[in-house]
Amino acid sequence: MLEENPNVCELLGMSASVPTDICFSFAGLMRRGGDTGPHSDGWGIAFYEGKGYRAFHDPGASADSEIARFIQGYSIKSDSVICHIRKANRGRVCLENTHPFSRELWGQTWSFAHNGQLRGIKQWPLQYYFPVGSSDSEYAFCWLLDQIRREFPTPTRNPKRLWSFVETRVRELAKLGVFNILMSDSRVLYSHCSNRLAWLTRRAPFGNAQLLDADVAVDFAQETNPDDVVTVIATRPLTSNEQWHAMKKGQFAVFEKGLLAYDKLNPT
Amino acid sequence: MLEENPNVCELLGMSASVPTDICFSFAGLMRRGGDTGPHSDGWGIAFYEGKGYRAFHDPGASADSEIARFIQGYSIKSDSVICHIRKANRGRVCLENTHPFSRELWGQTWSFAHNGQLRGIKQWPLQYYFPVGSSDSEYAFCWLLDQIRREFPTPTRNPKRLWSFVETRVRELAKLGVFNILMSDSRVLYSHCSNRLAWLTRRAPFGNAQLLDADVAVDFAQETNPDDVVTVIATRPLTSNEQWHAMKKGQFAVFEKGLLAYDKLNPT
Repeated sequence: MLEENPNVCELLGMSASVPTDICFSFAGLMRRGGDTGPHSDGWGIAFYEGKGYRAFHDPGASADSEIARFIQGYSIKSDSVICHIRKANRGRVCLENTHPFSRELWGQTWSFAHNGQLRGIKQWPLQYYFPVGSSDSEYAFCWLLDQIRREFPTPTRNPKRLWSFVETRVRELAKLGVFNILMSDSRVLYSHCSNRLAWLTRRAPFGNAQLLDADVAVDFAQETNPDDVVTVIATRPLTSNEQWHAMKKGQFAVFEKGLLAYDKLNPT
Repeated sequence: MLEENPNVCELLGMSASVPTDICFSFAGLMRRGGDTGPHSDGWGIAFYEGKGYRAFHDPGASADSEIARFIQGYSIKSDSVICHIRKANRGRVCLENTHPFSRELWGQTWSFAHNGQLRGIKQWPLQYYFPVGSSDSEYAFCWLLDQIRREFPTPTRNPKRLWSFVETRVRELAKLGVFNILMSDSRVLYSHCSNRLAWLTRRAPFGNAQLLDADVAVDFAQETNPDDVVTVIATRPLTSNEQWHAMKKGQFAVFEKGLLAYDKLNPT
């Protein structure tokens, strides 16, 4: 049902209760980068390990990427992940336009990836954060962080107040076009669906999963502990034999340690 | 002559007139990370490709690092490089304390790596940039960028005025302890020597170079074009048969497209 227009970027995110590797889901997604999919304008992946952040970016096609092959075989245990395979719409193909983008706010590394286009975003004023590249996406991320910084010059102790504020600003951006996003502040994973995002929470009892894009299966019962909770969120479902939740148009959701912590539909 | 106390971090930087790979120098440096050297508390490397920036960080020992082995075999052509192998003095061993650190200013990615210790830096006030980790080094970088941003809210068209200002603030930091640094704003490579940095400019006619730390040699005449100019700067010379310039205590130098563009000794 999400196959009507595959000619867009692919997003993949993870939120987990314990450091977890994303090798299995990543293997499926990477096959869409110029192999089973048309997304051949670069890709990137960001991993959070506690407050620590590291990202791998490659402006080439992911299916051919040496870095992608390396990452598939290298188990990074992470609390949150954001990954993006780009099909360039706006902004030329180059390293500085390759998602995820990152900036520091309150001594936390925020990162952001976007699928869609925003009309007129570059007319909006910026104050603290400025884009390095020329993409609409990075510009929107800078504007969003500017807004958060102006509202919360220092971190709030009330996370729901922050999430609610982010929701309002995300909805403003979404009025400009298509705004499927994943964003993390190193503590939670924010998501907004304009037209395509789906998620899945894996927890005990764990079962078997079969990738859609590659002949690969995994038995999570062998790979996990009974208390683990892991949510995976992607543009399109990555597995054929699990129950994915398609997000609704205008749905904004925040995941914390693998669990859905905040969930709002478009109020309009 | 620079061997008296090898129990410090190792720095490596490059500034080049054309995108150049650093595989040869990197191979030598990595051998010092827990193999020929005692630097086993993580490492990182940052590459600039035009305005684009990507970094690889690994909190483990570089000599054992799968990422380091991958990077050695993966030719990234870059205009500037900053690399750091850590021997932890302050701040625990973890991803967020792994150099190089990066921040955006004026839509340019700045990055920074430091060898040394600074006493009392954490008492200095910060305004725009805040550390993610607990190292003195990242704190000093945040303070330095704060100072630059306050003096130059927008980019200056006079680079020498910027370099001169950076020099004054670097000298303030250097009063707190040992401050061997490499920093880039994506255009130039800044360096300051408290007690150990050496540099070498390779240009036509290119010759043969032999690594000190590994039985590896390269004939740069085969690897370069006649117009290429490449400066490599490191804590200790990396090759045995080339003429390295040892920097003086208090020397501050800026390299642009491989050439020394600004060079000041400590005025005191």
